[in-house]
Amino acid sequence: MEETAEQLQKTVTHLADLLHSGQDEDFVVSFKALHDFEMGQVYSSLPEQMRAVAWRLLDDETLADVFDNLDADDDDIGELLQEMPPQKATEILRNMYADNEADVLQNLPSRLVATYLSLMPKAEADEMRKLIDYDDQTAGSLMSTEYLAVTEDLRVVEVMRLVKHQAAEAEAISYVYVLDNQKHLVGVISLRDLLTHPDDMLVSDITNDRIISVKAGDDQQDVAQIVADYNFLSIPVTDDNDLLLGVITVDDIVDVIDEEAVEDYSGLAAVNVSQTDDTPWHSAIKRIPWLIALLLLGMSTATLISSFDGLVKQASILAVFISLITGTAGNAGTQALALAVRRLAVGTDNTAWKNFWSEVLAGLLVGTATGASVFAIVTIWKHNFELGLAVGIAMAIAIMVANLAGYLVPVLIDKLGFDPAVASGPFITTLSDLTSVLIYFNVAQLFISHFIGN
Amino acid sequence: MEETAEQLQKTVTHLADLLHSGQDEDFVVSFKALHDFEMGQVYSSLPEQMRAVAWRLLDDETLADVFDNLDADDDDIGELLQEMPPQKATEILRNMYADNEADVLQNLPSRLVATYLSLMPKAEADEMRKLIDYDDQTAGSLMSTEYLAVTEDLRVVEVMRLVKHQAAEAEAISYVYVLDNQKHLVGVISLRDLLTHPDDMLVSDITNDRIISVKAGDDQQDVAQIVADYNFLSIPVTDDNDLLLGVITVDDIVDVIDEEAVEDYSGLAAVNVSQTDDTPWHSAIKRIPWLIALLLLGMSTATLISSFDGLVKQASILAVFISLITGTAGNAGTQALALAVRRLAVGTDNTAWKNFWSEVLAGLLVGTATGASVFAIVTIWKHNFELGLAVGIAMAIAIMVANLAGYLVPVLIDKLGFDPAVASGPFITTLSDLTSVLIYFNVAQLFISHFIGN
Repeated sequence: MEETAEQLQKTVTHLADLLHSGQDEDFVVSFKALHDFEMGQVYSSLPEQMRAVAWRLLDDETLADVFDNLDADDDDIGELLQEMPPQKATEILRNMYADNEADVLQNLPSRLVATYLSLMPKAEADEMRKLIDYDDQTAGSLMSTEYLAVTEDLRVVEVMRLVKHQAAEAEAISYVYVLDNQKHLVGVISLRDLLTHPDDMLVSDITNDRIISVKAGDDQQDVAQIVADYNFLSIPVTDDNDLLLGVITVDDIVDVIDEEAVEDYSGLAAVNVSQTDDTPWHSAIKRIPWLIALLLLGMSTATLISSFDGLVKQASILAVFISLITGTAGNAGTQALALAVRRLAVGTDNTAWKNFWSEVLAGLLVGTATGASVFAIVTIWKHNFELGLAVGIAMAIAIMVANLAGYLVPVLIDKLGFDPAVASGPFITTLSDLTSVLIYFNVAQLFISHFIGN
Repeated sequence: MEETAEQLQKTVTHLADLLHSGQDEDFVVSFKALHDFEMGQVYSSLPEQMRAVAWRLLDDETLADVFDNLDADDDDIGELLQEMPPQKATEILRNMYADNEADVLQNLPSRLVATYLSLMPKAEADEMRKLIDYDDQTAGSLMSTEYLAVTEDLRVVEVMRLVKHQAAEAEAISYVYVLDNQKHLVGVISLRDLLTHPDDMLVSDITNDRIISVKAGDDQQDVAQIVADYNFLSIPVTDDNDLLLGVITVDDIVDVIDEEAVEDYSGLAAVNVSQTDDTPWHSAIKRIPWLIALLLLGMSTATLISSFDGLVKQASILAVFISLITGTAGNAGTQALALAVRRLAVGTDNTAWKNFWSEVLAGLLVGTATGASVFAIVTIWKHNFELGLAVGIAMAIAIMVANLAGYLVPVLIDKLGFDPAVASGPFITTLSDLTSVLIYFNVAQLFISHFIGN
């Protein structure tokens, strides 16, 4: 990867040099020979004054390729567009794939969006407004409206002619969608089938009518799961009346899977890991709010221990096992949390009660095994059977409770309609610190008369 | 998803009924109308005695589709294959895509592999042995050897004829690879370009010679990153002499991204979350070893606190802040860990020293901010400035250390050549418990003469 970054820098320098020395034509040829992804990387890496020359030299379609390959969430597309007059920016947007165009517009200030839409033909602007309106993270927000659609009464040769004609425009050419007269989606033909069947065959004879489609409002994670399971290169999106609205291509699905994974991972660690090149300052700013919030929750544990001060004064040995019990219960809670979040993500969590009892049982097993180990260790170490028993029992119960909390918190968040991945590991460990300490000191209180004498 | 599971069960029942009532032909027609993914799901869900009928009725190609769509890691493909005579199983394997065939063979007992390979034509068996030999998680283990390759001197119409001819066989038809006479990869043509250029054009005129390829030994995660960045539908794999070995298709990349995400997530939580339908027993068995290992590490913290028993006896108030400091430092460590693992995964970690100092600086900021908050809270709560100062300073240092540990552990694991994602959050929190307690009691010792009087 290091190599790639270096290569990119070399390409940028080379292209900037061409512009600098007035070799405009060579610049255009070299730039257009780049892969689309590289065009995006190079263009956004050029010095601003070089970009001012570059966009004047490059045609709208090439510039659309550039912007198609920038990340609408991360890259400063708005600023790049504002380096050009609104008319030019609008032409570039119009040449982009509709889904990317909508992504870019969704991330621009509304003033700019209004400007760009006002410069488009009305029908196109209306269509774009519809796309922009789909909620983020739904199928609608991912779909492209450039697809190949035909009617059932055509023959293979006619469809191939259409495919050839539209291939340069459409984002996905691996499938052709078959519509009836009312534009309902009735089937799909793969390009592979078109290529392997005789020219004069009727479309209806090779149409696969077992359509797997999604609705525009479907969650992007569910869509990604279907595409991953079925190994599709694209999937059609329909409305409630089976009218074809658009298609989602596998490259967007790859991004979704990556994005969701980063979200889950960030959630578990209580820190947003999506920006890996933050400055120390920005990185700290992101972490501090979480830490302070968890610190306040942790204060309740401190207050609780404080209320058991009399007990600690009686038996200072109790202080020894606080971090062992809170730490281990926290680890168990984190495990249960991760399993629950994953189960919700892959959608096997359809029998919540069965899972609840499974998790209770797993917690009992884990708690008992760990509690027994601690009992043995402490009894031998401190030559104190009662102390070992107290710590072992407290540990077992604390783990069972933390385990159940780790399971229930994401399930409840999911039931409330939020993404269960926001349930963070640090939140669960801090919460379980509280319950663990409560359990520990109460159990210790029961046993104290026994082990304090030893 | 629930719906899908129900639908699947219905389909299975329906197809089993057809077999049961002797409607064999209807079974075959209905089965073959299923999507490939569904064929896999349905076949493996049929009762064993029904499968014994099913494989006799279905042709080798359809059965190959079935096995192509089962997960070689998860599903009991070995058992399904052993339900048939070795000759039949071998024929099915031979009809599968080479990458899937190799995956299946890699997961079978060596006795079975030897049997199946011995029943294949020698050339084919030799080729398969090569594929099996690629290390898991490398490009070689993902690649398929069925691709479309042509020489430069052909015309578009001739290539299209080849494409049509091989379309039914090859796994990926979106790109055609161009080889020179020595079989070196010299370029690539997209099917899109073939469709949009005149029949009599020379291949060499539309070949893109800016090839992005990977080596067979490359890490699958790096390959996935390239495919995701470039929005490729497949990527060629070459050896060190640029000979084309195979291609990796985007459906396998989707699986890799998913697999790597699950691994990272599992690592962070110290539990393998890849099996979401485990029994409570199996689930507990997976969690207990980690918890016990961490417990033993946690015992060192307990021992350390035990060695400070005199201090706790003097000032039982010290017990109050143990869990607050260990918990908060653990949270900070988890954040740093997650950021470091992610940075290593996306490969921006190419300037380790810069990152080291960035992380030190971020830790200073986070530690100072959190320490200051704790100082204020404790001072006000306990009306004890010196105690607040001791806890605040201890907290700040403990966070800085935990933060640095969270950063360094995955970086060191990576330098040692292992996957940094194995560095778990619970490991870091348990480790930082130790350092935090050490810091806390040493700082407290310095201040104790001041705050014990209040």
